[in-house]
Amino acid sequence: MPMSILLHAARGETPVDLLVRNCQVVNVLSGEIHPCSVGVKNGIFVGFGEYEAQKVVDACGRFLCPGLIEGHIHIESTLLDPIRFAQVAAAHGTAVVVCDPHELANVMGLDGIRWLLETTRNLPLDIRCMMPSCVPATHLETSGAIITAQDIAAMFKEYPERVLGLAEMMNYPGVLYQDPQVMGKLFAAGERPIDGHAPGLSGFDLNAYILAGPGSDHEACHLDEAREKLRSGMHVMIREGSSEKNLFELLPLVNDFNSQNCSFVTDDRHCDDLLRDGHLDYTIRLAVSRGLSPLRAIQMASINTARYFGLRHRGAVAPGYRADFVLVDDLESFSIFQTYLDGSEISPASWRPAATDLSVTKSVHLGELNSSCLDMAAPMEGKRVRVIRTVPGQIVTEMDMIQALVQNGRVMADPEADVAKLAVFERHHGSGGVGLGLVRGLGLQAGAIASTVAHDSHNLIVAGVSDSDMILAVRTLAECGGGFVCVRDGWVLYLLALPLAGLMSDQEPETVASGLDQLNASARQLGCPENINPFMQLSFLSLPVIPRLRLTDRGLVDVQDFAFTSLVE
Amino acid sequence: MPMSILLHAARGETPVDLLVRNCQVVNVLSGEIHPCSVGVKNGIFVGFGEYEAQKVVDACGRFLCPGLIEGHIHIESTLLDPIRFAQVAAAHGTAVVVCDPHELANVMGLDGIRWLLETTRNLPLDIRCMMPSCVPATHLETSGAIITAQDIAAMFKEYPERVLGLAEMMNYPGVLYQDPQVMGKLFAAGERPIDGHAPGLSGFDLNAYILAGPGSDHEACHLDEAREKLRSGMHVMIREGSSEKNLFELLPLVNDFNSQNCSFVTDDRHCDDLLRDGHLDYTIRLAVSRGLSPLRAIQMASINTARYFGLRHRGAVAPGYRADFVLVDDLESFSIFQTYLDGSEISPASWRPAATDLSVTKSVHLGELNSSCLDMAAPMEGKRVRVIRTVPGQIVTEMDMIQALVQNGRVMADPEADVAKLAVFERHHGSGGVGLGLVRGLGLQAGAIASTVAHDSHNLIVAGVSDSDMILAVRTLAECGGGFVCVRDGWVLYLLALPLAGLMSDQEPETVASGLDQLNASARQLGCPENINPFMQLSFLSLPVIPRLRLTDRGLVDVQDFAFTSLVE
Repeated sequence: MPMSILLHAARGETPVDLLVRNCQVVNVLSGEIHPCSVGVKNGIFVGFGEYEAQKVVDACGRFLCPGLIEGHIHIESTLLDPIRFAQVAAAHGTAVVVCDPHELANVMGLDGIRWLLETTRNLPLDIRCMMPSCVPATHLETSGAIITAQDIAAMFKEYPERVLGLAEMMNYPGVLYQDPQVMGKLFAAGERPIDGHAPGLSGFDLNAYILAGPGSDHEACHLDEAREKLRSGMHVMIREGSSEKNLFELLPLVNDFNSQNCSFVTDDRHCDDLLRDGHLDYTIRLAVSRGLSPLRAIQMASINTARYFGLRHRGAVAPGYRADFVLVDDLESFSIFQTYLDGSEISPASWRPAATDLSVTKSVHLGELNSSCLDMAAPMEGKRVRVIRTVPGQIVTEMDMIQALVQNGRVMADPEADVAKLAVFERHHGSGGVGLGLVRGLGLQAGAIASTVAHDSHNLIVAGVSDSDMILAVRTLAECGGGFVCVRDGWVLYLLALPLAGLMSDQEPETVASGLDQLNASARQLGCPENINPFMQLSFLSLPVIPRLRLTDRGLVDVQDFAFTSLVE
Repeated sequence: MPMSILLHAARGETPVDLLVRNCQVVNVLSGEIHPCSVGVKNGIFVGFGEYEAQKVVDACGRFLCPGLIEGHIHIESTLLDPIRFAQVAAAHGTAVVVCDPHELANVMGLDGIRWLLETTRNLPLDIRCMMPSCVPATHLETSGAIITAQDIAAMFKEYPERVLGLAEMMNYPGVLYQDPQVMGKLFAAGERPIDGHAPGLSGFDLNAYILAGPGSDHEACHLDEAREKLRSGMHVMIREGSSEKNLFELLPLVNDFNSQNCSFVTDDRHCDDLLRDGHLDYTIRLAVSRGLSPLRAIQMASINTARYFGLRHRGAVAPGYRADFVLVDDLESFSIFQTYLDGSEISPASWRPAATDLSVTKSVHLGELNSSCLDMAAPMEGKRVRVIRTVPGQIVTEMDMIQALVQNGRVMADPEADVAKLAVFERHHGSGGVGLGLVRGLGLQAGAIASTVAHDSHNLIVAGVSDSDMILAVRTLAECGGGFVCVRDGWVLYLLALPLAGLMSDQEPETVASGLDQLNASARQLGCPENINPFMQLSFLSLPVIPRLRLTDRGLVDVQDFAFTSLVE
């Protein structure tokens, strides 16, 4: 019996598997750093003491910290497959990841979530997930799947250990107006954690939102907003990701009396940042550089997060906790010397998917493409057309009204005015649905760029100044199962294939990172300026919840009205 | 739908029931004290803000704190019935009590626990309980009931909301040696909280004990012991009760990084102390007087305890939490101005038992008493007898070996040598079982004293220098359903009846407190010296787990051997 074996080992009646000697334990429970030896049996800490051991590791005075815990991340944003993401994260000291497979779910629904859970089953890095709450994100787009309250309840049953709760409830108007489907999802979560997502919500509406269930927030960008949310009982997840960076602004929130209600999360972390700077180890380093005590920073990246999610025996070094720990030379640089997960030093190279599901690589299903599918009829004389104007470095857009360039009764791209054609192809059900529009600000002077990463439904989005290049870009992605592509004059300049649901690569992290560099270099050749990340901009042009004008597979959306609008005024 | 009503109120669309204006919220979540107004609807906090309200209370700048939470108490030790205990506790700011009905369970088993839960059902003060883990406490005594692992599992099912986990696991040898019944009880608790009870346990044995499940400790008397337990992952309950007072010793344990893992509890609190000094408000006052920050002290008496027990929506002032709060004038004196429970100012005088169960008043079932039942045969010439010697103010005893006073072939009490006869009558099943012995140190010069409070099985214990007075004392308690009694020369000097399971009074707290004074005064008339509490001493003489010599209904116990021994050497 496992418990019996542990008790015998804990009492010193049988040797432990591993004894780490000569270390300084960062004890996140007693709030101290104390010298000691730590015994491990069957992947579990049995406790402190000079145990007889099968294997003894001399930590040479290093600090022994609990393995780090990520409380909110979309693994898809790394572009890495979950196993390879785990390999990089573990090397940076991460032991547990609570992910929100929102993108995967929009493409593949429950099957996508199951694939994630199955492929990472038995991985030493412990991957849990929250059930995406908003699939589809809106009624203005066609997603690959619909996730209902019943689906959510079913997944809690199917994966009682690994599906922890309900992921970020972005539909806060649905909560405030008590939309039955939204309320059904909150109800399905029962007493499980429900993550919030309500940027800027305050006052009475915030009170109502919290009452309805969401217990955490990772969207606060301003100190006052975070303070109101903390006061009102939310667990504040301070986000330091690749695009959203809130650490420096929110750190003054943390005091000697409230830090147990705060955690560090990344939300979105790109693979190059992950490789170069790290994961939560980077956040700890950054926070400590700003004066946060290392002990508190480590608590915020371990036990605090475990407790918010009700994860037992995770995030601390004490009897009964899973033996996830890192050895670090000093707490300021927080450079990971070694990571141990489940009682053993990690060997990430040996990590392999536990199960394969080929359906995940066949997620691009287009309707018939023909030469006229990009045709937009010219407006009546004197009428202007709506153009999405991107804002460098931001995901909001503006709406411009212009006189379109017209040839042969069709609206054309107009490179001189920095106006490209934009199309979103429904790519989940092969319906042939396509939304057409214009975009200004990408700088395209030639060719086309396309992506199957296109929030939130991840249809196939393409921008270009040449219809034939646009069609080639679309065909290229359809054939490889999705990705990012640059096309010019009938040639593929660069393809970064993302065959896993059209969202993630199956290649090594270094390959993906250098591929992104080459992809962006190719986009520069098409005219995209240095100050924008063209594929990031492109991937958000289809997100109909952020102002102001967007394009989905079903048409142009004026976000101000949360309704479709026409190209022509 | 209740949630719908709350959301409408939170958004200000309908008036709240109560608005407390002009207060300083002690926010145990954000670790701040901030001015605000607080709205309440249907007994739930809807949040901060200037809500339109049916009723407005001006707090006149007072501090508004969450209602206090008691994490470990044996209500029976107050001698009060649970409703009256709740009335006093609520007036002192207590909102939630997690009790361990260990004494009641030893007398009445599951029916006693059910009675406790039913009689306090729907009380504004929220009473939860932990399932007693050690009934009977030992195999050396006859308890009123046996509680098995199956019983424990059944009660979790029967009271899923109110029975929270497994109460203090005192049988730590049973844990360390993996006694199947003990392990079965730990297993039955599953992921529910399991309270520990392992005074002095340390090192490898402590590690094993914690691994097996117990997650809290309230027995540490020394700072080093508490520190080791905290480091090893136990939630440290700092106890300040009527007899055990650990606050001053353990307070230095609490630092800026660990207080979330510490709580205040009382364990045992006598009704006079409760009336005079208070409950957890007293502990807060005491801790603050020793330099602990009031905010931290309040956290340790509210949210920290709620979280340890997994009590959702208790112990803080924020949307969704039950509207349990106290108004206090200042945080140093922590004098309770008003207590609100479930959204209303308390009116304890109106609190009545929710259900009655007369069986609880008929718990004393003796066998036939006859004149020879106290006879002890004289030892052979020259043989000495074992005598329990009490130690003033402590519950440990010593074992003396003396030449007994003998008359007519019987061992007699010997007042000149301060030796009284001692008897423990089995009082649960009417078996007629009686254990006989001698006790030294009570000072009895005449008459007898008797009690149905006799740890842990609560049989009827009587000490005296006159057989007839002893029998009268026993008969008196049998007739009234139990209590404390002093008898002299055929007269009852004073009877404090405890008809509820022979453990608790059905009278007003003030009556019980003054009754105790009169009882002790009567005992002084029998010769008991001022420096001992005779009924407290008496009630522990039957506890066969504390060194050194004890008497149960089944005979003399040498605790050193954890086995029966004989009167004669």
